[in-house]
Amino acid sequence: MTHPDPAFSASEYARRLTKTRAAMAAAGLDILFVEDPSNMAWITGYEGWSFYVHQGVVVFHDADPIWWGRRQDANGALRTVWMQDDRIFGYADHFVQSTVRHPMQDLARLLTEMGHAKARIGVEMDNYYFSAKAFTTLCTELPNAKILDATALVNWQRAVKSDEEIAFMHKAARIAENVMDGVIARIEPGMRKNDLVAEIYGDVIRGIGDDWGDYPAIVPLLPSGTNAAAPHLTWDSQPFKRGEGTFFELAGCYRRYHIPFCRSVFLGTPPDFLKRAEAALVEGLEAGLDAARAGNRAQDIAIALAAPLERAGIERGARCGYPIGLSYPPDWGERTISLREEDETILEPGMTFHFMPGLWMDDWGLEITESILITEDGPASCFCDRPRKMYLKD
Amino acid sequence: MTHPDPAFSASEYARRLTKTRAAMAAAGLDILFVEDPSNMAWITGYEGWSFYVHQGVVVFHDADPIWWGRRQDANGALRTVWMQDDRIFGYADHFVQSTVRHPMQDLARLLTEMGHAKARIGVEMDNYYFSAKAFTTLCTELPNAKILDATALVNWQRAVKSDEEIAFMHKAARIAENVMDGVIARIEPGMRKNDLVAEIYGDVIRGIGDDWGDYPAIVPLLPSGTNAAAPHLTWDSQPFKRGEGTFFELAGCYRRYHIPFCRSVFLGTPPDFLKRAEAALVEGLEAGLDAARAGNRAQDIAIALAAPLERAGIERGARCGYPIGLSYPPDWGERTISLREEDETILEPGMTFHFMPGLWMDDWGLEITESILITEDGPASCFCDRPRKMYLKD
Repeated sequence: MTHPDPAFSASEYARRLTKTRAAMAAAGLDILFVEDPSNMAWITGYEGWSFYVHQGVVVFHDADPIWWGRRQDANGALRTVWMQDDRIFGYADHFVQSTVRHPMQDLARLLTEMGHAKARIGVEMDNYYFSAKAFTTLCTELPNAKILDATALVNWQRAVKSDEEIAFMHKAARIAENVMDGVIARIEPGMRKNDLVAEIYGDVIRGIGDDWGDYPAIVPLLPSGTNAAAPHLTWDSQPFKRGEGTFFELAGCYRRYHIPFCRSVFLGTPPDFLKRAEAALVEGLEAGLDAARAGNRAQDIAIALAAPLERAGIERGARCGYPIGLSYPPDWGERTISLREEDETILEPGMTFHFMPGLWMDDWGLEITESILITEDGPASCFCDRPRKMYLKD
Repeated sequence: MTHPDPAFSASEYARRLTKTRAAMAAAGLDILFVEDPSNMAWITGYEGWSFYVHQGVVVFHDADPIWWGRRQDANGALRTVWMQDDRIFGYADHFVQSTVRHPMQDLARLLTEMGHAKARIGVEMDNYYFSAKAFTTLCTELPNAKILDATALVNWQRAVKSDEEIAFMHKAARIAENVMDGVIARIEPGMRKNDLVAEIYGDVIRGIGDDWGDYPAIVPLLPSGTNAAAPHLTWDSQPFKRGEGTFFELAGCYRRYHIPFCRSVFLGTPPDFLKRAEAALVEGLEAGLDAARAGNRAQDIAIALAAPLERAGIERGARCGYPIGLSYPPDWGERTISLREEDETILEPGMTFHFMPGLWMDDWGLEITESILITEDGPASCFCDRPRKMYLKD
């Protein structure tokens, strides 16, 4: 079987595999096991909410990758990956969340049968879905293999986006703009927070025309007032209040490609300190966008941002952005480059970031952000086109 | 600071801590580090979408637990946990997704300063958020400690629910019923799948009256026709078709407590094989519910279910349920007991399960499920009250 509507062209998947194999060779790896669902999807097209059980993709130098996972999810692999059906391997259900067996015993058996018992095998040591137990089990079951840390090896290959990927991100950006427009149109004092979240999800998932919306890897975040000091609180049913600000950390998502987009809204007249913070933040954003040029470094964006904030007496102490693209929960970042003063990664055309200088202070918070594309020359281009400000409503 | 509206009473949190400490003592642990966000929330009340970075709760025998995580999320901990502010520890942002540092270095420093460098420390070896690298870093940084596997130690304490927890689950059940009613009222041939998902999210999050809806740990799953063979495919924009069945795997969620609830809908006249499967599945569900009695074993439910299915020629080969309650993505199960023939766990009053005998065959699928509560005597009680059938619509 093949996917009736694959996300990407065959040449795009071939490009990705070639890049991955080159990185494997540079790292001295015979084979690579990726359990990160974003990396699985990027290499094979695999889609589905099955990452709550152990599964993965194994990449070889001289043969197509294999998909390995729970037997019932092999039905999903048959319908989504580009490889032939005989490259799909399902393990028996008694391995699932067992107290006496571990799925990595099945993977080790399979790799041994395929002749890789003594291979140099890369694994993603710092990843949500490759657990400590998965690692120790694989080491025990493959005593003659060499298990090596390949954390983020695939993620780094994803940093520069292809034209096909950027096209998806533009679709996600149109969704993100529409979602934020809906927030600003609907929010008013007395509206319950969860009722607005219900509308946000409606706009996220209906999408724009034929460009249907996928689920973002993070839920809407919209803390108000003093709670806006806490960046990751989720909603409740408290009504929005006059005299309070709320930041909206949202995203549009098209076929797993994300455009995060944040704006803040104040109901009523904001206090002076918040207006000063807004002005400094917007100035910092503009300086950062101007520094976000091919050939500059990730740190240049952070340094450009910091200057106007420091002049306003605001010390953030946190990184101000991360790469974005294909992702699955719990994070829409790619976990490679960080926009912060110590990161010397050179910016390249086609890199995409969420430039995210959220201000989370002791008793207030403010978010105005842009998802950006590094271009061939000139400053970064913003995926969304909306005023860069704190919105005011009565 | 304290939470203005804590989910549970002080005595409920005290009960949980006492149970956890007893399990730690039985396992010979001095301290326990839990990174599972469900376990963190169950013990401390901590809430927030911050589990994409390393964080955790450390439990001691002779002092209140501590919350440890990223510094910006300490603001969320201050607002949600029951412990005093001096039990909250934030690590510096340069540990976040760094290529040269690991947050576990900070945790090891903290535990050392607190005098636990030689402790017997339990960690959750097979958990989404405790990575292989977190484990090896902790082992390296605490060479004189004994790091022991405490996978699911807290999860097992969560198996029997308190009255306060069951009250939350009844609220989630009202939401789940309303969500499913909405699906059945709205679905029709030609409707785009993502448009129905948008409505589903609206009902999930608006909730029922004052009982606002939280986000379920799994997104809506609703594959149709032959794709219903694949249990974990997510949506696209394909229209529902006459002559096709769709299963809806959904949940209501109240303050992180879940009631999963699945029904199938066929548009038009179902084929005979599907009607026979429905009849066998409903008979199996009823037999399983009758076997789900305190004093019986988890396996008794699976065995009771299997008989009518086998008579109809259906061999599932997968477990048919799991414990439910408090959860965070990517799974709404508790990952302890499995309803399958090898699991001899004795059922106790207050245990809650998703009795989930999904049928995922080669080219069709059917889901009719119940979330259940084991009662003092008699068969299990179902949280939701809706006809146990495949719904038919024109």
